[in-house]
Amino acid sequence: MKLVTYRHEIAGEARLGVMADGMVVDVELLGDVMGEGLPATMLDLIDMGPDALAAISRGLEATDGARPAGLAVPQENVRLLAPIPRPRKNVFGIGLNYTEHVAESARSLDTSAELPQQPIIFSKPPTAVIGQGEPIRHNAAITRQLDWEVELAVIIGRRATRIDKADAMNHVFGYTIVNDVSARDNRRAGQWIFSKGQDSYCPMGPAIVTADEITDPHDLDLWLTKNGEEKQRSNTKFMLFRIPDLIADLSSGMTLEPGDIIATGTPAGVGAGRDPQEWMWPGDVIECGVEGIGTLRNPVIKVD
Amino acid sequence: MKLVTYRHEIAGEARLGVMADGMVVDVELLGDVMGEGLPATMLDLIDMGPDALAAISRGLEATDGARPAGLAVPQENVRLLAPIPRPRKNVFGIGLNYTEHVAESARSLDTSAELPQQPIIFSKPPTAVIGQGEPIRHNAAITRQLDWEVELAVIIGRRATRIDKADAMNHVFGYTIVNDVSARDNRRAGQWIFSKGQDSYCPMGPAIVTADEITDPHDLDLWLTKNGEEKQRSNTKFMLFRIPDLIADLSSGMTLEPGDIIATGTPAGVGAGRDPQEWMWPGDVIECGVEGIGTLRNPVIKVD
Repeated sequence: MKLVTYRHEIAGEARLGVMADGMVVDVELLGDVMGEGLPATMLDLIDMGPDALAAISRGLEATDGARPAGLAVPQENVRLLAPIPRPRKNVFGIGLNYTEHVAESARSLDTSAELPQQPIIFSKPPTAVIGQGEPIRHNAAITRQLDWEVELAVIIGRRATRIDKADAMNHVFGYTIVNDVSARDNRRAGQWIFSKGQDSYCPMGPAIVTADEITDPHDLDLWLTKNGEEKQRSNTKFMLFRIPDLIADLSSGMTLEPGDIIATGTPAGVGAGRDPQEWMWPGDVIECGVEGIGTLRNPVIKVD
Repeated sequence: MKLVTYRHEIAGEARLGVMADGMVVDVELLGDVMGEGLPATMLDLIDMGPDALAAISRGLEATDGARPAGLAVPQENVRLLAPIPRPRKNVFGIGLNYTEHVAESARSLDTSAELPQQPIIFSKPPTAVIGQGEPIRHNAAITRQLDWEVELAVIIGRRATRIDKADAMNHVFGYTIVNDVSARDNRRAGQWIFSKGQDSYCPMGPAIVTADEITDPHDLDLWLTKNGEEKQRSNTKFMLFRIPDLIADLSSGMTLEPGDIIATGTPAGVGAGRDPQEWMWPGDVIECGVEGIGTLRNPVIKVD
């Protein structure tokens, strides 16, 4: 199931939708049609657990071929937002989680050439999140090394602490794409939150694909283009720490909660690692793709 | 004004209170008495802005000497929680913000002996927050170097980006105490979120003192004791980056919001910097004090 957060018009409220045949079906209204209480937001849906997903499936089947215009809207008539427009906490990010990216970072940044022995965890505040089509803000007074990083992001479905690796995949609600935007010249004594956490530095979307639809999250192509030119291409099978490792590790000390987002790291091909180095500038358009999820597209704009 | 979040009984809901003559006065009920809408939570109060604080002041005056038992409860009959039990985002922390702590960290940890040129920003997830009396969790399977750090914490009152230094203090709602608990052996490639962000690693409280009551936040004694023995004692005048610097710097890239918490760094005397080194162990009791705010007391317990 492909879930989105959307608005009818610029001024409308954010609504939860499910994609069906190129249409966005409103989940709360679908519940009304079915006589079942279905939620109006993504976080409420995640909180409700698997029964709510099953109810949406039944609703889509029951209304197939007979959806009134108010219930289903063509995708081109809505504006997508980030699937979770306002996370309840920081977004977790994982650094240096693909072998070749470790190598390019060691060449071009101040990181070690050795493979990390444990996941390198950082965070972005929720204010960094933007959705499909929203602009990445380029403030030349702050950075002249604004970089891209396509990543598969995992959405946690349940509250839990100290999750066993063997059980970890049962805690995954679904997957989305994150562009882990990074101002390379804004790292401070190694801490990454300012370089990776500024407003608009966490483009996310376009949809959350539920876990049941992704047969193997460790065999997904992912890629990134800048102005149509390919800059990154790899596959999630090259992750150093895989999703169960990350969930077990994070939750060994930090309780994970429904709607938590873990961006699982980027492969090689970032701007800092290229020769010559390349950065994002106003006017650029960045597209991030992950197989089975979609394409996340964001322009870069100048802010003074 | 000294504001607290409290519960009557273990099972009761969290309520917003204001301290008056050793009593906790319930703010929402005070509003009922006054015929004014006053909030039931600290975050709602901060969102309402200065008018709500003025209404509380008027209410305290109007009911002085004539508060029924339901409106005012002796402090010893309530349980205090963290003043903001569930922040809306990560708590911001500032590393190496006192000269002598920079020196002791360079001797004992892997940080630089040079004074930072810009604030070193890190974060703790909201799941790390605990309140007065709640236990700091010691998991010996994860850490054998659990350390303390008393800090003055600033509570932001208004949503804003790119705040001018000259205007920054107008964005402060109030102050509280944070113990920036740190598992020194859990740092990873320099990133601090796991070492500082585990469950219970952000004791906070006991109260938020509103900005008007703190004449000079850069001249407050702060101290920490372990089992009654003094381990840290300094004054906030020794901060390297002062509060307006921190607010201007953080907000230069990251929008600050009502209820945001900035822990402003710890002075010398942490366990890692002592000779021989000392750590927190189950059975220890840590007290953190900041002049004009109170004492934050937390026991350390063993978790398996």
